[in-house]
Amino acid sequence: MKKNLRKVLEDLKNSKLDIDSALELIQQNQNTIELGYASLDIHRENRTNIPEIIFCENKSTDKILKIIKSILSEKELVIGSRCSEEKLKLIKKKYPKGTYSFEGKAFFIGKSKEKIYGKVGIISAGTTDVPVCEEAAILLQALGVDFERFYDIGVAGLHRLLSKIDKINSSDVLIVAAGMEGALPSVVGGVFPQPIIAVPTSIGYGTSLNGFTALFAMLTSCSPGITVVNINNGIGAASAAIKILKLLDSKLRKE
Amino acid sequence: MKKNLRKVLEDLKNSKLDIDSALELIQQNQNTIELGYASLDIHRENRTNIPEIIFCENKSTDKILKIIKSILSEKELVIGSRCSEEKLKLIKKKYPKGTYSFEGKAFFIGKSKEKIYGKVGIISAGTTDVPVCEEAAILLQALGVDFERFYDIGVAGLHRLLSKIDKINSSDVLIVAAGMEGALPSVVGGVFPQPIIAVPTSIGYGTSLNGFTALFAMLTSCSPGITVVNINNGIGAASAAIKILKLLDSKLRKE
Amino acid sequence: MKKNLRKVLEDLKNSKLDIDSALELIQQNQNTIELGYASLDIHRENRTNIPEIIFCENKSTDKILKIIKSILSEKELVIGSRCSEEKLKLIKKKYPKGTYSFEGKAFFIGKSKEKIYGKVGIISAGTTDVPVCEEAAILLQALGVDFERFYDIGVAGLHRLLSKIDKINSSDVLIVAAGMEGALPSVVGGVFPQPIIAVPTSIGYGTSLNGFTALFAMLTSCSPGITVVNINNGIGAASAAIKILKLLDSKLRKE
Amino acid sequence: MKKNLRKVLEDLKNSKLDIDSALELIQQNQNTIELGYASLDIHRENRTNIPEIIFCENKSTDKILKIIKSILSEKELVIGSRCSEEKLKLIKKKYPKGTYSFEGKAFFIGKSKEKIYGKVGIISAGTTDVPVCEEAAILLQALGVDFERFYDIGVAGLHRLLSKIDKINSSDVLIVAAGMEGALPSVVGGVFPQPIIAVPTSIGYGTSLNGFTALFAMLTSCSPGITVVNINNGIGAASAAIKILKLLDSKLRKE
Amino acid sequence: MKKNLRKVLEDLKNSKLDIDSALELIQQNQNTIELGYASLDIHRENRTNIPEIIFCENKSTDKILKIIKSILSEKELVIGSRCSEEKLKLIKKKYPKGTYSFEGKAFFIGKSKEKIYGKVGIISAGTTDVPVCEEAAILLQALGVDFERFYDIGVAGLHRLLSKIDKINSSDVLIVAAGMEGALPSVVGGVFPQPIIAVPTSIGYGTSLNGFTALFAMLTSCSPGITVVNINNGIGAASAAIKILKLLDSKLRKE
Amino acid sequence: MKKNLRKVLEDLKNSKLDIDSALELIQQNQNTIELGYASLDIHRENRTNIPEIIFCENKSTDKILKIIKSILSEKELVIGSRCSEEKLKLIKKKYPKGTYSFEGKAFFIGKSKEKIYGKVGIISAGTTDVPVCEEAAILLQALGVDFERFYDIGVAGLHRLLSKIDKINSSDVLIVAAGMEGALPSVVGGVFPQPIIAVPTSIGYGTSLNGFTALFAMLTSCSPGITVVNINNGIGAASAAIKILKLLDSKLRKE
Amino acid sequence: MKKNLRKVLEDLKNSKLDIDSALELIQQNQNTIELGYASLDIHRENRTNIPEIIFCENKSTDKILKIIKSILSEKELVIGSRCSEEKLKLIKKKYPKGTYSFEGKAFFIGKSKEKIYGKVGIISAGTTDVPVCEEAAILLQALGVDFERFYDIGVAGLHRLLSKIDKINSSDVLIVAAGMEGALPSVVGGVFPQPIIAVPTSIGYGTSLNGFTALFAMLTSCSPGITVVNINNGIGAASAAIKILKLLDSKLRKE
Amino acid sequence: MKKNLRKVLEDLKNSKLDIDSALELIQQNQNTIELGYASLDIHRENRTNIPEIIFCENKSTDKILKIIKSILSEKELVIGSRCSEEKLKLIKKKYPKGTYSFEGKAFFIGKSKEKIYGKVGIISAGTTDVPVCEEAAILLQALGVDFERFYDIGVAGLHRLLSKIDKINSSDVLIVAAGMEGALPSVVGGVFPQPIIAVPTSIGYGTSLNGFTALFAMLTSCSPGITVVNINNGIGAASAAIKILKLLDSKLRKE
Repeated sequence: MKKNLRKVLEDLKNSKLDIDSALELIQQNQNTIELGYASLDIHRENRTNIPEIIFCENKSTDKILKIIKSILSEKELVIGSRCSEEKLKLIKKKYPKGTYSFEGKAFFIGKSKEKIYGKVGIISAGTTDVPVCEEAAILLQALGVDFERFYDIGVAGLHRLLSKIDKINSSDVLIVAAGMEGALPSVVGGVFPQPIIAVPTSIGYGTSLNGFTALFAMLTSCSPGITVVNINNGIGAASAAIKILKLLDSKLRKE
Repeated sequence: MKKNLRKVLEDLKNSKLDIDSALELIQQNQNTIELGYASLDIHRENRTNIPEIIFCENKSTDKILKIIKSILSEKELVIGSRCSEEKLKLIKKKYPKGTYSFEGKAFFIGKSKEKIYGKVGIISAGTTDVPVCEEAAILLQALGVDFERFYDIGVAGLHRLLSKIDKINSSDVLIVAAGMEGALPSVVGGVFPQPIIAVPTSIGYGTSLNGFTALFAMLTSCSPGITVVNINNGIGAASAAIKILKLLDSKLRKE
Repeated sequence: MKKNLRKVLEDLKNSKLDIDSALELIQQNQNTIELGYASLDIHRENRTNIPEIIFCENKSTDKILKIIKSILSEKELVIGSRCSEEKLKLIKKKYPKGTYSFEGKAFFIGKSKEKIYGKVGIISAGTTDVPVCEEAAILLQALGVDFERFYDIGVAGLHRLLSKIDKINSSDVLIVAAGMEGALPSVVGGVFPQPIIAVPTSIGYGTSLNGFTALFAMLTSCSPGITVVNINNGIGAASAAIKILKLLDSKLRKE
Repeated sequence: MKKNLRKVLEDLKNSKLDIDSALELIQQNQNTIELGYASLDIHRENRTNIPEIIFCENKSTDKILKIIKSILSEKELVIGSRCSEEKLKLIKKKYPKGTYSFEGKAFFIGKSKEKIYGKVGIISAGTTDVPVCEEAAILLQALGVDFERFYDIGVAGLHRLLSKIDKINSSDVLIVAAGMEGALPSVVGGVFPQPIIAVPTSIGYGTSLNGFTALFAMLTSCSPGITVVNINNGIGAASAAIKILKLLDSKLRKE
Repeated sequence: MKKNLRKVLEDLKNSKLDIDSALELIQQNQNTIELGYASLDIHRENRTNIPEIIFCENKSTDKILKIIKSILSEKELVIGSRCSEEKLKLIKKKYPKGTYSFEGKAFFIGKSKEKIYGKVGIISAGTTDVPVCEEAAILLQALGVDFERFYDIGVAGLHRLLSKIDKINSSDVLIVAAGMEGALPSVVGGVFPQPIIAVPTSIGYGTSLNGFTALFAMLTSCSPGITVVNINNGIGAASAAIKILKLLDSKLRKE
Repeated sequence: MKKNLRKVLEDLKNSKLDIDSALELIQQNQNTIELGYASLDIHRENRTNIPEIIFCENKSTDKILKIIKSILSEKELVIGSRCSEEKLKLIKKKYPKGTYSFEGKAFFIGKSKEKIYGKVGIISAGTTDVPVCEEAAILLQALGVDFERFYDIGVAGLHRLLSKIDKINSSDVLIVAAGMEGALPSVVGGVFPQPIIAVPTSIGYGTSLNGFTALFAMLTSCSPGITVVNINNGIGAASAAIKILKLLDSKLRKE
Repeated sequence: MKKNLRKVLEDLKNSKLDIDSALELIQQNQNTIELGYASLDIHRENRTNIPEIIFCENKSTDKILKIIKSILSEKELVIGSRCSEEKLKLIKKKYPKGTYSFEGKAFFIGKSKEKIYGKVGIISAGTTDVPVCEEAAILLQALGVDFERFYDIGVAGLHRLLSKIDKINSSDVLIVAAGMEGALPSVVGGVFPQPIIAVPTSIGYGTSLNGFTALFAMLTSCSPGITVVNINNGIGAASAAIKILKLLDSKLRKE
Repeated sequence: MKKNLRKVLEDLKNSKLDIDSALELIQQNQNTIELGYASLDIHRENRTNIPEIIFCENKSTDKILKIIKSILSEKELVIGSRCSEEKLKLIKKKYPKGTYSFEGKAFFIGKSKEKIYGKVGIISAGTTDVPVCEEAAILLQALGVDFERFYDIGVAGLHRLLSKIDKINSSDVLIVAAGMEGALPSVVGGVFPQPIIAVPTSIGYGTSLNGFTALFAMLTSCSPGITVVNINNGIGAASAAIKILKLLDSKLRKE
């Protein structure tokens, strides 16, 4: 930007521009900066690498299809979550080449991103926690992140977790989904050194409080360093994992 | 009772009693039965075997001392719980031969009950859960129940629990106290076959919700068959364990 | 296990095995042990005696049928709970010989377990609490536990409970289900000596808070020694009762 | 009022009043009516018969003494509640002839009201609920209402209640205070025909939720027709009882 | 009862009965008393005068019809509440002479009770609170209690209430239903002397918390002596009003 | 009023009225005043300028149509909110000239009010908050208030807000709707000087708590002077804005 | 700013500046703009007119005194709130000329702002709500806003409010503080046309929930257009009132 | 381990060991493995690199000093948190060379760890959030992690954050602490690409709910990928940051 500005000043100095034109050019320039508009936006695109994800709940299929079309007119990839089976089917009809997870109620259409460094381990306590995991999986897949699934290895049968220690250790970041008492992240956090992103799920009834017991349990875990996202928030967990791997990727590329 | 009544009627028939006396005798008899007074009370004493325990919170030391004196005038054993250090000291001064747990804020004075069959394992997740365990211990000791302590073996370091599997298996009933995320009973329930009485403690801050997260977690545990008592309720857990061992004891004595 | 290991060592010593084969055999052996896999699993099967129960909520009938088939290929008994009428009908069509409780929304298929020692009394406060009781009943029946029903004897009409004192006393463990204000376990706990497992139900409206008022009331009961399971958790209550009777059964068999 | 107004008009007509004086008199008259001031106030005094009660919490002793003085300058009776021991002592020093309940943290100074028809039974579940009952007692005493105490007859020992059926039946209205699981009003409501005012108390810990569990339990009681006041609100319960007896008293006086 | 017993004894004495017959008669007599069965039940019928009301929620129409039939075989009146339109229609088909409130979702079949002394004023804050009021009305009508409706006179337009002061004052007991902020009972309590039974309704959204805000507001009202029943509990409010009028009725009949 | 009264008195004095007629006239006058009826009502109509709005939830279309008809017989404008698509369609069929917002689930029929001074800016954090904004818009439009929409400018992309600073500054009052974490009013409050009415919406899941997190966040905002209305309460926000602009309008007209 | 920039360009054009100096000057200029720093800050100062207020809770007196000194070095007025009696005394010792409200726990030091147009009416339901009102009063006084107090006129005695209708109507904005059931704003909103800012206070016990019941009641008020601030937030209410009067003031000055 | 085992087998084969000794050695070996004891523990030490931190709340200074001594006998570094000023002073007296943060209520004694790769940015919304940040800082310092403080840059004055974009971008991981409405992480997450660990603090009153509003707001943030720890949990946030940097460090060392 400095260069551009210098050029304007030089052009003014050299009478290639009159004062009013120079003023206007600088104003325009300032405008974008002043409002933080373009620069922030560019940061968002280039640096966070997490594109906007269509939250399909409370949106009609028509509206979703319009948003998809509008995004695809500008970008190569569009991602959607919390998309009911019915909506998924209608979208798939229109965009049959997309990747659709009926379990994770999520999809992406278009070219997934280039593979980046690292791998995410997705661990679930029970089989009913799998949809939340698959929501995370779709985002990881779309954004070029390798991952491995470790499902149904909750604390009621510890051996299931313990028998997979080595395999789990090959992942760089762990996403751990659990409902009911949400104890699995505590145990995982006592065994593994990786960054752990815990995802409470709404599985259970009565005192499971639709996931709040798992959420609170994970936040007050006796294993230090566990971080937590919202209940059933597979997209959020995947986003957090991607932020970590992107950091890793950027540093490793620099070296 | 039937016999007594028949005797009254026979006496009446045989003119050993006049109608008014017969009426009075039957009335008296009815009275206790009708009101359920004596019989229920006797049941309580003879069958539940859990004597009244003085809840010392919100009672002045004077009031507590009066209750102690009044109970000791009728029974050989008096037990108190939730008794502050200050109160304990004053009571101890008066009854130096009692058993006082400053950690469990509980005491008993007088002759503890005869040993009964069986053993209780008291497990704590952390060191800060110990006072709740010691409250349980005082009641077990007073009522003649053998027990063994397994403290500070929470889920953040699973090996601590796993290394004690055999020892823990020598107990007939398990009391498991844990605060924060309250995950220990779930793990214990996946490893051990005994009846498990889980005690949530108020240890932790923020989302531990003064023990409610542990309570809810224990109630929605993925390990089936765990039962739960109120937050910090060591006395309740011990009482429940005693009820189980009393059942065992009575059956084994019969055989 | 020791024997197996000694045998490997002897075979090595006797040159029936070379070092690499011995190493591998010990490793395999260790592996299961190290990971806690087989041993813990065997413990679970042989000692807890509570087989896995299919939680049918949030599972498609297809998925449930697959799980049933897979379990029946290895075991003689499969149990399911929280199974809607519609699902129950479809399962029954496939496995007409199973035992199905449309009231308890539960079922078991295959040979129920051998009778064990003891009897469970299942008490309900009202008629609307019955489904939760019947869920418990199915599990008790499947696992060979005798039980007796005492339904609709809540505190608004005390005489209903008091008139059944003797009958209830013939049970070894009591399951007490109540919704609304959840007062029945307190009264039962003041009258009966047995271990009591209280089950709050979600019956009621407004301040019944979908069962939480009953749950909290049972946990803060003035009758000491009551233990509690999750709201509507008939399976949990039955499991806890079974753990107590199994303990009894094992001790009595030993004698 | 009509008469007064007619008189003003007649006086005007008869020139005993000029228009301005008539206008002023009507205005004054209107004013009180228009604003609802005096009439409503008179209703409150004459009909509700529940004088203002000084809520002493959050008020300095100085302020309380000033209010007492100001009320006594106009009325023969002043009542205060939620008054700490320290404040009570200071007030007593100033007004030694008052009636002070250190247990109920309440007092009244001056002449208590004339006895009215009827009697209130005050029932408490435990001994720790007594202070709330004594708060009610002070108000009843001050307002000339007869009452009888039935303390410590909670549901853990039913016989205590059942043995007092006849005595309790001599009361016209029942106030029932209970903490913890708050089950006593349900049982009382199943046995007695009188109007029942249930008072939850904050006795208990953990899931007693400072009285909310008792409150919710009382509101969702399976015994129909129980009414409830705020937690620890002895004054409120007494006021409600007084409203019922005042109704009775007024009707009986009429007959 | 004493008389009956004396007669048995006299008959025995006079050889009109043999000992075994006398024994049996007394036993029967005792039985009901001993178990508290008949006496309590008789008390309930004769003194509380609030017959059992069928709670139709969660009951099939078939079950409800069976209960109706069974009650009508013994009594002249059967009452039901929380009965959906669909169920009401089916019941009406079978018992066309009953009284059905589609607004109050309640009904009674058979002969309503004899008129008793007094009148209940039913006040609602808004029009949407009316169904709860009509639930109360059905019970009052069935049990012979006179009542008058004062609907839609909430605090947003005070004049509506104030203009009805005289009419409302002709009632002996006031039922006041309000949702949202539940302020009406506070205002009514500041204006009227009668016993007030406040019924919070679940009308509103967001912070109305399905009636809990109104409930809590009514319980913490600055007008002393208001009593409260569960959210939407029209039956409970009517029952409480009836208990008061029954007391009045019994006293006035005595005089 | 004074004048009218004086006139009555003069007429009486001058024998243009007899005493009974004068009495009646004054009574009528008093009556409205005494009861606060007409005067308060007139105040409401003339001064608050917020006519009654039909809350269509829980009302049948029939009932709504009746209310519409009845209001239109007296006034030129009727407004309804929380009206489902189905109901809106039926009402529109009957009153095709009305203004119907299917997004805001609101409508008005008849002549909208005269334009008043000032403009309201309606800001939404996301696109899913728009229905709440449109509910506000319908009321503003009906009552003659100018407004401008600024939708989907939430805190995740600050530039969207910052780029509209000047436009937003042309509004006199700001309504800011946001769900999820409800952060937008805090940011708006740090940038703009206008009165801000924050509307939490129920958008989000899990810890968004159906709008309570946004509500609480807005109330505890670090930007001073933000005021808040109920969750999803577009009508309430518009009413508050109108009250401010009406104040402005009345003052400016006076000048 | 445009002028400044034009001047730089002219100076450059006129060779009064070289390109590098011009570049630097524009950069500096841009910098503040780019970062939104100065412009936003100036907006805040000049337009919101609500200076920073020291929140004294959790701050040592030393820290508060330092902040006061630092603010006074730049501005003529410093305001503090939530300042305990002890801290107030220490601050007063240092700055004896300040205005200190020991009831409102707030103060200001220095020259209060110029009077602006309009008046605020501060209404309290009870005497215990006064401290919250006085907190508001201090801020109004400091910022040059006229106000009038209407204390202790809650709904239990409606006449107190109704008798002050005219006086209250002389205020342009109403702040209404109430604890317990928080009903006063509903009543005020039905009577008065002004913008109403409701302040829930934490007065009460039990179901008053430390002010949450009042808060929720105010938010779900049946009187439309009431806005609400946080519990006990006198500063917030005053700030909101000031924003409205500042709007009024700015418009009236323009005219 | 394989090597050790092979050696035992070779020794057995070569008759350097007899079978029993070999058996015992393998058993010992197995024991640690079987129980998961040593291996897991070593993993914990070597891989998670987060040593045990003494939670000083609820521990006497004596107990803390004993634990410090015991840890220092085995390790070079001991860390403590939630340590009151009084306790800190006593510990400092004993270990004057330690690093003590009276603001963060934390300390470490002994040699801090070697510097690892990367830097943490610690951002606070207000000055009152600083203690939580300083708790994090102590752990980072102890474990050799570089960090930079960005305090008091909350959303009420956005420019404060925006002016530090470049500086903040030099950090690899961001810890963002905020109380009240907890909006800062949402804004930071919309501007910065780094992994963000949000820490809700208990700053605020009323609807801040002791930090739960900030917690819930952060979890339901509209900025994807934010992870959250418990309220006031500076140690947890630092631990999570360290886990990420350790991952980075290990990968970069490998390259």
